Amino acid sequence: MTIKTIIGNIDFAEYLRGKKGTFFLSLSNTDTAKIEGITQAGIPGMIHLTPTLDTEFLCTGEVRSLENIATTPKGVPTPGLITRAVHLLHPFNTLALLNLGLEVKPKIDYFPLYDFGITPSGSIGTGANIDAMELFEKGLEFAQEYIFYNDYIILGESVPSGTTTALATALALGYDAHEKFSSSFKDAPNSIKESVVDAALSNCKEGDDLFEKLSRVSDNMLIFNSGFVLGLQKRKITTVLAGGTQMAALLLVINSILKHTDQTINSHKLALCTTKWVHEDPNSDIKGLLEMLDFPINAYYVDFDFSLTQHPALKLYDDGEAKEGVGAGGALMYACLNGITKEQITRKVESFLQ
Amino acid sequence: MTIKTIIGNIDFAEYLRGKKGTFFLSLSNTDTAKIEGITQAGIPGMIHLTPTLDTEFLCTGEVRSLENIATTPKGVPTPGLITRAVHLLHPFNTLALLNLGLEVKPKIDYFPLYDFGITPSGSIGTGANIDAMELFEKGLEFAQEYIFYNDYIILGESVPSGTTTALATALALGYDAHEKFSSSFKDAPNSIKESVVDAALSNCKEGDDLFEKLSRVSDNMLIFNSGFVLGLQKRKITTVLAGGTQMAALLLVINSILKHTDQTINSHKLALCTTKWVHEDPNSDIKGLLEMLDFPINAYYVDFDFSLTQHPALKLYDDGEAKEGVGAGGALMYACLNGITKEQITRKVESFLQ
Repeated sequence: MTIKTIIGNIDFAEYLRGKKGTFFLSLSNTDTAKIEGITQAGIPGMIHLTPTLDTEFLCTGEVRSLENIATTPKGVPTPGLITRAVHLLHPFNTLALLNLGLEVKPKIDYFPLYDFGITPSGSIGTGANIDAMELFEKGLEFAQEYIFYNDYIILGESVPSGTTTALATALALGYDAHEKFSSSFKDAPNSIKESVVDAALSNCKEGDDLFEKLSRVSDNMLIFNSGFVLGLQKRKITTVLAGGTQMAALLLVINSILKHTDQTINSHKLALCTTKWVHEDPNSDIKGLLEMLDFPINAYYVDFDFSLTQHPALKLYDDGEAKEGVGAGGALMYACLNGITKEQITRKVESFLQ
Repeated sequence: MTIKTIIGNIDFAEYLRGKKGTFFLSLSNTDTAKIEGITQAGIPGMIHLTPTLDTEFLCTGEVRSLENIATTPKGVPTPGLITRAVHLLHPFNTLALLNLGLEVKPKIDYFPLYDFGITPSGSIGTGANIDAMELFEKGLEFAQEYIFYNDYIILGESVPSGTTTALATALALGYDAHEKFSSSFKDAPNSIKESVVDAALSNCKEGDDLFEKLSRVSDNMLIFNSGFVLGLQKRKITTVLAGGTQMAALLLVINSILKHTDQTINSHKLALCTTKWVHEDPNSDIKGLLEMLDFPINAYYVDFDFSLTQHPALKLYDDGEAKEGVGAGGALMYACLNGITKEQITRKVESFLQ
């Protein structure tokens, strides 16, 4: 199991070997996920619980707000299993949660769950209705105030239907992002997704500025984290965006904000790491998204797959049924950087399903 | 795989279990390596690149300034493979490089490469031409200023023909070191080496003081590190000299400087660790070198060998064709202190050669 370069070179990643990492999981709900058939990231009818359950399982190994681990209709378990496996094999030095608008708060004690008074966002089909400027500033402020002890931050997310809002966001900001976005589906339901995205874009009015567009078509995770990540970079805190096309969209949002405010960024301490499943996904193009940035970026994937298991639910990952989430890509990078093997992760994930 | 005591007792080493280590690799070139047949530490005609390539491979897993990993004429790969394997299996908490006069700077990003404005030294056959006092003071100053986060330092080296300059240094300082020095050769070319060392010694003039002698017959690594290690000991920073007879020579230089300046050292926080290949080398005597010190020292070797592999290039180590370098002995100690096995290191090193 090794870290492979998508863009840039390996040095950013190699330099982090043996260093201490803080894992942040950013959590939010958007009513976009309530549109039937738009996502398979969770249990039908209870999709909104996915970030809540992911958090409970990642932190405690238990699913408390529902009996079973969130699975997709075909029975693909959450990529949070991978992140949890890594955390058991070589713990993150700090594990922290960002409540960016959860419907149901996770039942966890002790773990820091940062609350910013953010409510779930609306469906982008009818208008997300986010105060984007306020949310961006909350992210920026949190980055400035956060007391940081470790060497780097790994930032993951759990946002059902987040690839749909990410696609709408990238398109609304003027990026040629059609067919570059991943999905939790193998055969991504492009017709539903596209009609929702089209509706979202039609809500944008001529003369909308950047933040007005974000308010209508984006999600809390993307907007808050654009401020958070920019603030971290101002403090020169090394940050790994742990995710696939949603995290690429976050970079595009940051790119647009920089242009909008006539600023530049030193992106030397910023990178992205995703899974092999995203990297090899024929239905999306993370490299293409990253190439649209005006600043240089290091991006990686880890060549972990489930070839060492016979478990049918896990085999579905290798079939393309699930690809990324709960910071799995960044967690796998953290595992690589600390000597954990593919075999160890496979056995640990299997143990959760017994 | 265990740590064995050469001199002293095991307590120094045992105390470091689970503690955080900074690995420093000190890099330099001496024109002594350009004398035909004097060293096999590298590719003929490109010996000067060895420290550059060792650094690139240790830090990034890639050899950037040349296509293939530096091998000796018989095809023995650099002991840097062992150090890299350890770094992958249980990463050093910090990996840092000291440029003590490189001909070619390694192509690495992010990793700290400390630069002191030092140029490669001359051949000791005609005079090394080093400002020894200035270099010693640079080492001392760096030790005083270095901001240290971890629990101990492991100090390795990559200096082609470094055993020749080490032998000349020990002899010039009056130590009875004949036939106590190791070589990267199995059948060390003692005639060439001896004639170079004889020429070096004949360059010393009657009445030369300690630093004048070092200026003529030594190398940048030994001189800078004598200041660096003395400075670290003044700060009570635990230091493991990772190497064989060259690191023993460094201790002899320190010993002479202490006598010369009428000082003493508390060597309680200083030790040396080398490989089994150096320890068992019939052509050298590291224990004999260490017994000439006026201060007590703990010295170890790790009983790692390549008995678990079938790879012919690695088997050459067990035949005595290569013994030490790039801090391999200290890296093996770090591996032992953190639960890494001989089997794990063997498999990882093999993976580099596939």
